[in-house]
Amino acid sequence: MSFLCMMEAKLPPGFRFHPRDEELICDYLARRVAGDGDGVPMMVDVDLNKCEPWDLPETACVGGKEWYFYSLRDRKYATGQRTNRATVSGYWKATGKDRQVVDPRRGGLVGMRKTLVFYQGRAPKGKKTDWVMHEFRMEGPASLPLKSSYKEDWVLCRVFYKSRGLCSKPGVRTATTTRDHPLCRPSWTPSSASSTPR
Amino acid sequence: MSFLCMMEAKLPPGFRFHPRDEELICDYLARRVAGDGDGVPMMVDVDLNKCEPWDLPETACVGGKEWYFYSLRDRKYATGQRTNRATVSGYWKATGKDRQVVDPRRGGLVGMRKTLVFYQGRAPKGKKTDWVMHEFRMEGPASLPLKSSYKEDWVLCRVFYKSRGLCSKPGVRTATTTRDHPLCRPSWTPSSASSTPR
Repeated sequence: MSFLCMMEAKLPPGFRFHPRDEELICDYLARRVAGDGDGVPMMVDVDLNKCEPWDLPETACVGGKEWYFYSLRDRKYATGQRTNRATVSGYWKATGKDRQVVDPRRGGLVGMRKTLVFYQGRAPKGKKTDWVMHEFRMEGPASLPLKSSYKEDWVLCRVFYKSRGLCSKPGVRTATTTRDHPLCRPSWTPSSASSTPR
Repeated sequence: MSFLCMMEAKLPPGFRFHPRDEELICDYLARRVAGDGDGVPMMVDVDLNKCEPWDLPETACVGGKEWYFYSLRDRKYATGQRTNRATVSGYWKATGKDRQVVDPRRGGLVGMRKTLVFYQGRAPKGKKTDWVMHEFRMEGPASLPLKSSYKEDWVLCRVFYKSRGLCSKPGVRTATTTRDHPLCRPSWTPSSASSTPR
């Protein structure tokens, strides 16, 4: 069981994993890159070449609409920089420009976010789907110091199924949700949280 | 200190209060209406006639961009249903239609959400501001059974300052944030949470 699921299962109603990009890079990806596992993994590891988007593990699913996991980028060629993101039924194709992720706490660039869309079939004839992935990688001066394990090329991925409801302005949130939060139960009481050690 | 702040202060990076409308009504407003305070208040009480939007208590602020609190509606006239939402410097004016809040867990209507905008000055000459309020009230068959305290007319309010960044699609979240989450610190470790009692 991943740390995210373990945490989410403890939260009172209305509290959920809703991270900012720089948190994903500095607080989650950085730990994986540093091999800082201590016991419970923060997120599960997924091999994107072996897993179709609709087969992503349930343990990676947060709030019923987003999947978060680590992935080791598989080089297309040992010498090149291009990544192989093909699965049995299709492939992930990058779209748009990579976006810079800046952390105000560190005062600078900490990583990049690449957006990819899943296509069924084989390029260039693949059929576009509504599965979208944000692939986060560490980069920039404010990022953590390079380690040997860094070269292993770990990325953090957020996958979601694109829908009209994605824009979660207060109020239309109900529309963005495809299932109930596991712990949204009226039986929950503050006392169960107030005993938590600081 | 409100329960929300207490909880938020314990959360690891990326976890925050991001409730759905039905959670606000069934899990938070319902407790206040039922007078179910047990120790730590879930949210603070605010008298909207005595408090300007920019003076809302810090303890009611979540994630740096939304204020959640309970409020006792002040009747304009003892006999009427109209609510007096005037402050010293201005007034809250309803806009648009009230939205129904349905809870899939209860399979029906549990409440209504009214949207209000703050105007500076006096009606009808008030000057519109970017302060917006969602006022949640209990209503409907799937709502809790009426209690005497229910007649007291408690509502739950979410106030936010409207800005371009409000749409929190994954990735533009950084733009929606006006301050760092109190506990977004790289020093945080899973062990501090894994010891939490279930």
